Amino acid sequence: MSDDATAFVPGHITGFFSAHPDDDPAVAGSRGAGVTLSHGVTVTVEPASESTVTLDGEAVEMEPVASVLQSLGVTAAVEAESELPLGAGFGVSGAMALGTALASNAVFSCGRSENELVTVAHEAEVRAGTGLGDVVAQARGGMPIRIDPGAPRHGYIDGIPARPRIEYVTFGGLSTADIIGGDTSTLTTAGEAALDALAEEPTVDRFLAESRQFARDADLLTDRVETAIADVRDAGGDAAMAMLGETVFAVGTGLSDAGYDPERCFVHPAGSTLDTA
Amino acid sequence: MSDDATAFVPGHITGFFSAHPDDDPAVAGSRGAGVTLSHGVTVTVEPASESTVTLDGEAVEMEPVASVLQSLGVTAAVEAESELPLGAGFGVSGAMALGTALASNAVFSCGRSENELVTVAHEAEVRAGTGLGDVVAQARGGMPIRIDPGAPRHGYIDGIPARPRIEYVTFGGLSTADIIGGDTSTLTTAGEAALDALAEEPTVDRFLAESRQFARDADLLTDRVETAIADVRDAGGDAAMAMLGETVFAVGTGLSDAGYDPERCFVHPAGSTLDTA
Repeated sequence: MSDDATAFVPGHITGFFSAHPDDDPAVAGSRGAGVTLSHGVTVTVEPASESTVTLDGEAVEMEPVASVLQSLGVTAAVEAESELPLGAGFGVSGAMALGTALASNAVFSCGRSENELVTVAHEAEVRAGTGLGDVVAQARGGMPIRIDPGAPRHGYIDGIPARPRIEYVTFGGLSTADIIGGDTSTLTTAGEAALDALAEEPTVDRFLAESRQFARDADLLTDRVETAIADVRDAGGDAAMAMLGETVFAVGTGLSDAGYDPERCFVHPAGSTLDTA
Repeated sequence: MSDDATAFVPGHITGFFSAHPDDDPAVAGSRGAGVTLSHGVTVTVEPASESTVTLDGEAVEMEPVASVLQSLGVTAAVEAESELPLGAGFGVSGAMALGTALASNAVFSCGRSENELVTVAHEAEVRAGTGLGDVVAQARGGMPIRIDPGAPRHGYIDGIPARPRIEYVTFGGLSTADIIGGDTSTLTTAGEAALDALAEEPTVDRFLAESRQFARDADLLTDRVETAIADVRDAGGDAAMAMLGETVFAVGTGLSDAGYDPERCFVHPAGSTLDTA
């Protein structure tokens, strides 16, 4: 048993998705496509007599993290530092769950494989209603295309072979639990159409075009998001909305060129990683 | 169409494996486990009127690379720079095939997905007889456990959740084609036993122990390799043999501590990556 261990988990923006609930949380998930970010969440775990979770130094209630600790049968102090805002479509809760699973396995010598740890974190997110596809995407890195939903052994993931620069701005949050807990039939129809189109041509341009169309068809655009996307396109770039948050992301210098002051990062190549021992 | 594109592919050392031939090269492959390295091969592709391949500045015949270019229907100048020796168990041919696939797709806008490109490179390696499992491991990164053989959609890969330092020394090469083209029944029995044991306990220690046992059971140890492994163990470390080369790898400072002058690197977290656009 080590004293502590640290894992980094990239942020993940979903561009479009369809929801696929199931009684088995390892089978439940989403199909869709997104982009993992070099900005993410660093999670440090150390043994403690009582489990606690902090995010950027503040104590937080984080059901997926508590659920991961319970699944692994450990009590620990979990400290997360995030470069990304919570609740704005960056997969921060998924990152915290997955980082907790990876770092806890190292600290407590749980003896789980990588796919088992991804499954534990995915199930925790699904049960909490905080996400359906972030964890498996964050474990993989790159620009994941979630072809079949669910945890490893159920899901199947491909990717867009590209690593563009990414810019993003956030105007506020949207509740993932409210949207994926409600009627998802309209968004699922739109998401499956987008996925079929992307499979025909797995490129960055097509991903952005299908993501824009999805936000419109699924009726999820807000006024501020719609305006920012239009501004980027007027300036000759391309952008789309993060699912689910009032967040706009663009490739290259799309938002800067349109006069915004965005955060800047890259597509993350690796997916979640433990720090080198 | 870009002027050129560059991809990095990590080296991959297999610790143990079983061979699973099939008439369909996407189905054929190996089961087993290994470690991807921060040392690897950088492949640059640019359009050319005739296809050529260089490795560290020298023209080479490299059947898997030629086969990848043919599968993608392109003619290109492929320049590879390798930190690792060819033919000594580091997956250099697989790295060149996969790097060529990724970079060619970017240069020629082939519109293939990541899994399609991995499949093209895997098929090329299998057809050439130069490897069975390196390409899928190199696409993934980390410490891959190849549970089901074959290209994506056929194969299934898990991983050991750890990122130790790695040291290695090479005494010479072994012919992959000779060994995997011969009678593989003994090594396959030994490889499957090792995989079952690792699945019980997917840790670095168990991986090294099973790899050592495999080299002995499959009768692949050479005198120099056996001596070096014994030296590392006498010095309190652990080491095993790379399949297939006269190469010994150790975790941490195992070889240095035993008085060798090894190359030093890390477990590669990402798998193959295109350079940022």
